[in-house]
Amino acid sequence: MDHQRYMRRALELAAQAAEHGDVPVGCVIVRDGEIIGEGRNRREERGDATAHAELEAIRDACRRTGSWRLHGCALYVTMEPCPMCAGGIVNARLDEVRYGVRDGKAGCCGSVIDLFQEGFNHRPRVYRGPLEGECEEILQQFFRGLREPRPEEKI
Amino acid sequence: MDHQRYMRRALELAAQAAEHGDVPVGCVIVRDGEIIGEGRNRREERGDATAHAELEAIRDACRRTGSWRLHGCALYVTMEPCPMCAGGIVNARLDEVRYGVRDGKAGCCGSVIDLFQEGFNHRPRVYRGPLEGECEEILQQFFRGLREPRPEEKI
Repeated sequence: MDHQRYMRRALELAAQAAEHGDVPVGCVIVRDGEIIGEGRNRREERGDATAHAELEAIRDACRRTGSWRLHGCALYVTMEPCPMCAGGIVNARLDEVRYGVRDGKAGCCGSVIDLFQEGFNHRPRVYRGPLEGECEEILQQFFRGLREPRPEEKI
Repeated sequence: MDHQRYMRRALELAAQAAEHGDVPVGCVIVRDGEIIGEGRNRREERGDATAHAELEAIRDACRRTGSWRLHGCALYVTMEPCPMCAGGIVNARLDEVRYGVRDGKAGCCGSVIDLFQEGFNHRPRVYRGPLEGECEEILQQFFRGLREPRPEEKI
């Protein structure tokens, strides 16, 4: 199914983020069945507080299409967007958001607030999933790795 | 007064945005009395939905300091931040926000929502002003210019 294909690509990008020491979150933007933007979390890699997967993907899609208006596009992201990224989704006029795992600390699709129901000038359709389980697993694996003692500490 | 000096620099950046056809919003970030980040709205100039003044300034400050954590910094912006930029302020851990004109359509310091009171993991101090009048005037001037008929239409 196509939704699964796009979320699977977002999961690949999340895995790349983890390889660079960043919390594994990945994102793709799709228009007419074609991926027109990709991003992964690069906050640590770049030392940039704004380099979340969704904003990276929005910037990429704007560059590739030559416009800041991403009408007719769907965004797939492995984790529920934070306020910055949910705001970016409003600003870019994205039609649809599909996210994997919920974020109880910063999630803006209902977990902390539902930013899209607050009366801003654009409101995307929002769906949970597909592949929620895999989106959760990649995060858990990353944080388990951070908590595990290093080999020399095990002695 | 120093607050005025920083907001005046933000107003200069706003004027540059207008020269490039963008809604005039400017922003500076200050640490220990020194400007360490600057940005202006470049949405139209760059065709990038994320290129708001605040995010441009945050990126600039992260680049210059080599860190995504902007502890001990104050942000001065000529217009109340939108959800994306308010979220960026949370993500960058900025201590203080000072804004000029209110934004009834997207403002997140109380005009539409008060994002900093929603329980996210960082909460900056927020102040209105200084130079609110000049921040409003530069916007009004820009929109008056857009509404005025072109010379050939006056005939």
